Amino acid sequence: MASTAGKVIKCRAAVAWEAGKPLVIEEVEVAPPQAMEVRLKILYTALCHTDVYFWEAKGQTPVFPRILGHEAGGIVESVGDGVDELAPGDHVLPVFTGECKECAHCKSETSNMCDLLRINTDRGVMIGGGQSHFSIDGKPIYHFLGTSTFSEYTLWFLYWFWCYCKCCKTTKGSTVAVFGLGAVGLSAAEGARLSGAARIIGVDVNPNKFQLAGKFGCTEFVNPKDHSKPVQQVLAEMTNGGVDRAVECTGNVNAMIQAFESVHDGWGVAVLVGVAHKDAEFKTHPINFLTERTLKGTFFGNYRPRSDLPSVVEKYMTGELELEKFITHSVPFSEINKAFDLMLRGEGIRCIIRMDG
Amino acid sequence: MASTAGKVIKCRAAVAWEAGKPLVIEEVEVAPPQAMEVRLKILYTALCHTDVYFWEAKGQTPVFPRILGHEAGGIVESVGDGVDELAPGDHVLPVFTGECKECAHCKSETSNMCDLLRINTDRGVMIGGGQSHFSIDGKPIYHFLGTSTFSEYTLWFLYWFWCYCKCCKTTKGSTVAVFGLGAVGLSAAEGARLSGAARIIGVDVNPNKFQLAGKFGCTEFVNPKDHSKPVQQVLAEMTNGGVDRAVECTGNVNAMIQAFESVHDGWGVAVLVGVAHKDAEFKTHPINFLTERTLKGTFFGNYRPRSDLPSVVEKYMTGELELEKFITHSVPFSEINKAFDLMLRGEGIRCIIRMDG
Repeated sequence: MASTAGKVIKCRAAVAWEAGKPLVIEEVEVAPPQAMEVRLKILYTALCHTDVYFWEAKGQTPVFPRILGHEAGGIVESVGDGVDELAPGDHVLPVFTGECKECAHCKSETSNMCDLLRINTDRGVMIGGGQSHFSIDGKPIYHFLGTSTFSEYTLWFLYWFWCYCKCCKTTKGSTVAVFGLGAVGLSAAEGARLSGAARIIGVDVNPNKFQLAGKFGCTEFVNPKDHSKPVQQVLAEMTNGGVDRAVECTGNVNAMIQAFESVHDGWGVAVLVGVAHKDAEFKTHPINFLTERTLKGTFFGNYRPRSDLPSVVEKYMTGELELEKFITHSVPFSEINKAFDLMLRGEGIRCIIRMDG
Repeated sequence: MASTAGKVIKCRAAVAWEAGKPLVIEEVEVAPPQAMEVRLKILYTALCHTDVYFWEAKGQTPVFPRILGHEAGGIVESVGDGVDELAPGDHVLPVFTGECKECAHCKSETSNMCDLLRINTDRGVMIGGGQSHFSIDGKPIYHFLGTSTFSEYTLWFLYWFWCYCKCCKTTKGSTVAVFGLGAVGLSAAEGARLSGAARIIGVDVNPNKFQLAGKFGCTEFVNPKDHSKPVQQVLAEMTNGGVDRAVECTGNVNAMIQAFESVHDGWGVAVLVGVAHKDAEFKTHPINFLTERTLKGTFFGNYRPRSDLPSVVEKYMTGELELEKFITHSVPFSEINKAFDLMLRGEGIRCIIRMDG
């Protein structure tokens, strides 16, 4: 691989030319890595609903043409100046958030919201030089989340790694509601199961999700469409006043409000994970707080990528985390739009995209 | 005192006949205590802004005629059947919330929101028999919060005691913003000071509050009226991104939103204490949660009245809690409307009402 170091690489990438239109496999030019940058060969990537949000660009700023994708595994092809932690041939998991280890957040006891390397969904360029390193016929193609994994080769600012959501850590014997049974919601259910939750209630408007969700620890299901009452009330009746913990994994602001209002007064905690529409407004009556409910959000499951992810990978390697059960489909890269179709139809959980196909 | 046991007592009470009109000192009849009830002779009471809210009845259900008042000290005059923890002559502090020690909340690790004896601001009757025990010429006068301390004698359901607000417990060296420098806000500042906060920023639209607030630990002040920018932004600039903890003690929903949006991302916690207008709506963009801010409310400072208050009284007796500095005015009971005038003009903190005057 070292023969390509320092040179522009021409390779295939799936370009989103405009909002909501099928991606087009194009030949793109990928510039060599600059200082503190790493160029990766992507082996496998997957489609996440966050990619779909930014591709639809309905509730988010449109940035096009763009190479989407942020869940992947790859191999380091070459590195720029100053990168001494990685070398060509290293297997890596690029992620969309970082950990500089120097800022107030990285030095705090609890935050993982690194000041330097925090997610910026509107930024279409590399964080260092402020330019795109992808181009077609000299015209820039924008980056996405610093990862852009829908390309055979991509550039990556050092310190971004992959993660598994732990947003649903809870206490033994508790009752948990998970709103949205996509990959993130099922991760939350799995987290609740591993923490010893006694009841895990999956909430989704798509009943096809329920069978699969049983594998991830969900013990009961509620489809809000089956009830004339608000889902908050349905859950309160099922649980003698409310759940101990609710996790919102849809990005829909109404589901966020429902999740919060579903927790028990006195001790209930709701955690928001989904990314809302840019104009969304969370609304509730203040009395819901005054009666001692807590609402908080989590970003990247509160994981610090460099400090915390190695132990997550270790858990996968030892079999404690069963990631395979998230994979329900697989397509070759040339058919990446099929992964979008599956996601839009709400079928399956994760569709793996094989870069060699 | 025992000579009045079992009999109706005629005494003076300050009756709120209608919303916003001065109280009228009337002769009322106070029925003897029923099962699990206690009749108290009130020695001193004080006016709190919560009394004013329900007297104005702008953002709350109007319940009139009513005897307001919920901060007081008194002596047990007689007790009803089943009361074996108190006897005539005992000095007591009636409070507006209870602790049955039997329900899920009382048995939980964290909640103080007792199911049986929880505050109900719309209830104008005694919790046991569902009737008012106050009357004038046989017509009922409604109770307030189970306390109705603006009467020389009042009835009280067992298990309601007085409290000191601890809503602002924080970590040493932290930066705290307190919204609203009334008695509750100053209690919060005092709590922050005792917890070792390094900076305590008082926020109020009334600059007269600032001098007094210095005695309660406030180190800096912000008057939102002095700034063209939103106060969230002013605080963010003063604190390199936001305060570690904000406590909202006004009941104004905009202040609640400001308090929440003033906390630092990654670790900031906002606590709502004030009681909002019944139609108020808390609104914010969900991204403010996703960036790892926490919002919660507290009721009665999260104290359990029976379990936790004795140690608070102990702290006052040993001088650790300096409650005297909250008392800025004093009036005889016959001039109780002066206490309302002071509160409405935003002067002072607590006005003690002497029942013997």
